Amino acid sequence: MTGRLIGVGVGPGDPELVTLKALRALAAADVVAHFAKAGHESHARAIVAAHLAAGVTELPLLYPMTTEHPRQAACYRDALRGFYDASAAAIAVHLDAGRTVAVIAEGDPLFYGSYMHLHVRLSEKYPTEIVAGVTGMSGCWSAAGAPIAQGDDVFTVVPATLAEDDLARRLGATDAAVVMKLGRHLPKVRRALEKAGRLARAIYVERGTMADARLMRLGDKKDDAAPYFAVVLVPGWETKA
Amino acid sequence: MTGRLIGVGVGPGDPELVTLKALRALAAADVVAHFAKAGHESHARAIVAAHLAAGVTELPLLYPMTTEHPRQAACYRDALRGFYDASAAAIAVHLDAGRTVAVIAEGDPLFYGSYMHLHVRLSEKYPTEIVAGVTGMSGCWSAAGAPIAQGDDVFTVVPATLAEDDLARRLGATDAAVVMKLGRHLPKVRRALEKAGRLARAIYVERGTMADARLMRLGDKKDDAAPYFAVVLVPGWETKA
Repeated sequence: MTGRLIGVGVGPGDPELVTLKALRALAAADVVAHFAKAGHESHARAIVAAHLAAGVTELPLLYPMTTEHPRQAACYRDALRGFYDASAAAIAVHLDAGRTVAVIAEGDPLFYGSYMHLHVRLSEKYPTEIVAGVTGMSGCWSAAGAPIAQGDDVFTVVPATLAEDDLARRLGATDAAVVMKLGRHLPKVRRALEKAGRLARAIYVERGTMADARLMRLGDKKDDAAPYFAVVLVPGWETKA
Repeated sequence: MTGRLIGVGVGPGDPELVTLKALRALAAADVVAHFAKAGHESHARAIVAAHLAAGVTELPLLYPMTTEHPRQAACYRDALRGFYDASAAAIAVHLDAGRTVAVIAEGDPLFYGSYMHLHVRLSEKYPTEIVAGVTGMSGCWSAAGAPIAQGDDVFTVVPATLAEDDLARRLGATDAAVVMKLGRHLPKVRRALEKAGRLARAIYVERGTMADARLMRLGDKKDDAAPYFAVVLVPGWETKA
C-alpha cells in the first residue's frame, strides 16, 4: 500500500483565500512538502503556517538557483530537471512508505505552478489528488476591482518574455489579457500595449494579493521599474483602476 | 453611512472549495444576493447553503430568460441590461439602508461572472470588496489531473461560439487553451482542434467539479452531445487524461 500524493493550492497569498479542502488535505497529510528558493522561506508555507499540525514532517524542496531564466537555456533546463527528479524521488520515498504527502503550491497547482513538475513524474505511479486553488491573477484583478472577462470574451495570459511584435499582436487580438513576469520587460510591454491600442485600459499590479499591494493605471506609472512577479491586467471591460 | 458591497466567489461547485474569506464575508453579510434562472435554485447558493446564517435576508436575482444567446442579439442584450439595472437597484436599496450585501458568485466574481454586471453599476458609488474564488476551469483541470500551463506558456480561453477558422487559428497559436460553452458547438470545436493539430491532446470535461463528472480524451468521445457548460481542455503539457 503506497501513500497518496495531494497537490494542494493555497491561493494567491492572503491566508484567508485558502479553501476548506486545502485545510482538510493539510490535516490529513503525514508529510507537507513545499518549494522555496535556497535561503528563503517558502511562500506557500507562509500562507498556511497557522494551519500546519505541530510535529508534521516537512519536506522543503530548495531550488538550485535563485533567478529564473528562459526555459530555452539548456544548462538551466538540465539543472532544473535534475532538481525536479530529485524532489520527486524524495517524495516517492514517503509515498512508498505509505505516507500521505501534501505538496503545497501558491495559487492553483496545475496553473503555472512548480507542483506540476512533480505531478508528471509521480501521478502515473501513485494515487494522486489535486485541490484547486485561487490563482495569483484572480487575486490581482480582485484587488484592482477590475472585471476581467465576460460573455464571449477571449482571455489570454501572455508572458512578458515574448518579442515585442508578438506581444502586440496577441494583445491586439484578445478581449482581455494578463501579462505576467514583467520585471525588466516593462518598457517593451508598454510599447506593445500602445501598438495594440490597449495601453489606456492597462492596470499595473505589484504584490497584488499582499497588504502592501501597489495598483495604478499603467499610463500613470512614471518609471519602468517592476519586480519579476508584477503583472499588467488588460480588462475586457471598462472599469475603475 | 451606506453599507458595503462584497462580491464573493464561492468556487466551482465542490462546497469544500470555498475559501475562509468567503465564509467570513457570508457571516458578516446582512443580505445575501444570488443569481438564478427562474424556477431553478441558485448554483452559488447551493454551494454555500450549509454556511448561510439562520434568518439572513436573501435576495434572489432571477434571470428573465432561461437560455443564453449571443451578446450580439440586441433584444436579448436590452432585456439583460434591464434585468441587471433592476438587480443593482434592488441591492442599492439595502446598501442605502446601511446593510452589508454579499453577492455570491460561482467561481471567481470578476472572471466570466454575472456579478460584474452589478459591480460596474455599484462599485463607483458604494464601498466594494471582492473575494476571489477558485474558477470553474481550475476545478475542471484539477479533476482531470491535467497540468494546463507552465513557464512561458501562452494560455487562452476561447468561447466555442467563435467561427471555425478563428477557433482553429487561436488554438494553433497558443500553448494551452480552454474552450468554453461547448453545447451544440462541439462538432465545430472538434474540427477546429484537428485543423490546429491539437485534437490528440484535448480533454472533454462535463460537470467537472461535480461528483458525477465525466472526463475523457475528446478523441475517445463517440458522440457530439455536450451540455452548454461542458469545456475542452488543451493542456500545454503532455499528461494522462
